[in-house]
Amino acid sequence: MPFDPSTLVYDSNGLIPCIAQAEGTGEVLMMAWMNAESVAKTLKSGKVTYWSRSRQAFWVKGETSGHTQELVDLRVDCDRDCLLAVVRQEGPACHTNRRSCFYTSVVGEETELMAPMA
Amino acid sequence: MPFDPSTLVYDSNGLIPCIAQAEGTGEVLMMAWMNAESVAKTLKSGKVTYWSRSRQAFWVKGETSGHTQELVDLRVDCDRDCLLAVVRQEGPACHTNRRSCFYTSVVGEETELMAPMA
Repeated sequence: MPFDPSTLVYDSNGLIPCIAQAEGTGEVLMMAWMNAESVAKTLKSGKVTYWSRSRQAFWVKGETSGHTQELVDLRVDCDRDCLLAVVRQEGPACHTNRRSCFYTSVVGEETELMAPMA
Repeated sequence: MPFDPSTLVYDSNGLIPCIAQAEGTGEVLMMAWMNAESVAKTLKSGKVTYWSRSRQAFWVKGETSGHTQELVDLRVDCDRDCLLAVVRQEGPACHTNRRSCFYTSVVGEETELMAPMA
């Protein structure tokens, strides 16, 4: 039976968080939001498609930058209210040109862990 | 300068999502929520402490089950509205007794990927 995105648990804005993780390395790249239709688009196209809360529009990751996320696997958690997309990331995932958005450590002194990609 | 949790971006409920990732393997274990005080408690105690939305109470992960998360690193994303906790997970992270909450794949046919731990 094909998966039905309406069986997921969305918040009051109709959104569910989606964590993107790099295939192979396991690096956590970013977290963004999806609605039921962007989940369906992601599964159908194989291109990870978020819902931009600021633009209130679909956000096919990398559509303008070329830094696409090809879907390898989409997993749902036990509560069905969070997604994990395993992806093949083209170039940096972060708009700051870093591989991951999580480049800052806040343990002890605040430190930048990762330089922008060349 | 020590990190100030009030500099993070919280949602309208005063919460920020926190992804827990296993040190070493890089496995994504779970996602739960923190408020500013649980961020501070996590940093101070080194025990990952969420905010339970259902119980409206602090949730020191593993306090009753013994399945604790020892904080290795806490990272903040570029928008400062999502956290990544790198942890030493004791036992399963999921309340279903699986290592990770993300044990179900929804690509193609719905499949359970991971059996509960013995």
